[in-house]
Amino acid sequence: MNEVMSYEGYNLLYNLFSLGIASMLFTTIFLFVARERVLPRYRMAVMVSGTVTAIAAYHYFRMFDSFNETFGPEAVEGVVYNVGYRYIDWFLTVPLLLVETIAVLALARAVQTKMLVKLVPAAALMIGLGYPGDAQLNVFYEGDASLWGLLSTIPFLYILYVLFVELGKSLDRQPAGVVKKIKELRLLLLATWGVYPIAFIASMNATGFDETSFVLREAGYTIADILAKCLFGLMIFTIARIKSAADDAEFEKSEYKEEVSK
Amino acid sequence: MNEVMSYEGYNLLYNLFSLGIASMLFTTIFLFVARERVLPRYRMAVMVSGTVTAIAAYHYFRMFDSFNETFGPEAVEGVVYNVGYRYIDWFLTVPLLLVETIAVLALARAVQTKMLVKLVPAAALMIGLGYPGDAQLNVFYEGDASLWGLLSTIPFLYILYVLFVELGKSLDRQPAGVVKKIKELRLLLLATWGVYPIAFIASMNATGFDETSFVLREAGYTIADILAKCLFGLMIFTIARIKSAADDAEFEKSEYKEEVSK
Repeated sequence: MNEVMSYEGYNLLYNLFSLGIASMLFTTIFLFVARERVLPRYRMAVMVSGTVTAIAAYHYFRMFDSFNETFGPEAVEGVVYNVGYRYIDWFLTVPLLLVETIAVLALARAVQTKMLVKLVPAAALMIGLGYPGDAQLNVFYEGDASLWGLLSTIPFLYILYVLFVELGKSLDRQPAGVVKKIKELRLLLLATWGVYPIAFIASMNATGFDETSFVLREAGYTIADILAKCLFGLMIFTIARIKSAADDAEFEKSEYKEEVSK
Repeated sequence: MNEVMSYEGYNLLYNLFSLGIASMLFTTIFLFVARERVLPRYRMAVMVSGTVTAIAAYHYFRMFDSFNETFGPEAVEGVVYNVGYRYIDWFLTVPLLLVETIAVLALARAVQTKMLVKLVPAAALMIGLGYPGDAQLNVFYEGDASLWGLLSTIPFLYILYVLFVELGKSLDRQPAGVVKKIKELRLLLLATWGVYPIAFIASMNATGFDETSFVLREAGYTIADILAKCLFGLMIFTIARIKSAADDAEFEKSEYKEEVSK
């Protein structure tokens, strides 16, 4: 027999998964079309942002179906809600989120490569180490997952070090408005990624399926995902716009109405 | 009765097939959109790369469905997992992978044609000769498939000869950064294509369906495919970017921030 959920819990997650699909899908379309509203050198950052939300849109469709086949009125006997979709999504999107963050700065090519060589493998490692722990906690409800949690924290702390300390040194050549935005971007990243260890620790003592913790975890992940991918991608786009206007007076004039002295 | 798999084995392959779909699909979209971020003379290579991942995305959707209909909770009585999808995919994509490799070099037209006339038929022959052997091993579990394995090794070795010896002679006119990338590309190709003979030889003594070897084989093919098509295509794109910047100072200026002396 499949697990059973209350109507309220089922309905809340159902709607949040649908919100996830809508947010990811239409941020993708917007970013791909709007890429031409920034200078060519910032388009790669906008396109990577759109790719991240596109990958997430695919996984939200899959999660929505997996959720319905497990808990819905037409649940299929023997189906288990697939925790794997989130991890495959994160395995692809978290490294790309770091790529878009570095790409929008348009740093010197050597500096950019140096940053990415550190950030991308660390991000893939962080997700790869988290999955066995989460599967242990939320599929098999057995064993001590704290080792996986701990191991995956190491690359997480390293990423924070690179973003807050090493990247900090490259920010002094950026326009003032951009520095402020980058700092907001880093805080958004810290806040949204922070949902993950909280959810992980919260499910460490579970001894079986518990509706409340399932709903809290999936709702938390979904809201954090929308902020970390859609809002994040739109902030990247805003930074690309500010930088395009700062780089090129012609671009500024064609994109923004001339501001008469007030 | 269909073959039965454990939850762990089923779940692992299920998630890897989904990873395959996501990787192929979004690499395709990215490459098709990003083709304008290289000079016109390199766009054909990027578009062929995107076509390869598009063909693979289609086949991963089909394999995902075939896998679920064979082993999933809603398995259809009498369905046999279709080994053919991989071979049809490879029959189309492996020659095209060689086309994109040659195209990105932008060699003289006569040299390019000479290379392709050797590589494309050899690749099609290699896949065509491998299929009867694999079907014998993994559908009928009978007969000696070593002859097919041996026959298909001949064009494989010929392709390696052309890529490592003949192509090597054309590399001295390429920029230094490009030569390094092409060498990485060839090693990636050798490493990922190498999974295939290993899997072939490993299943030579099978006398029926064996879950462990099925999971290892399909997981190995899927991971090798993602690296050989998505990572490979993105490396082709990177080479096209490096060559575009080397060919044209205007392009370099518009795509990359001017690198001020530090």
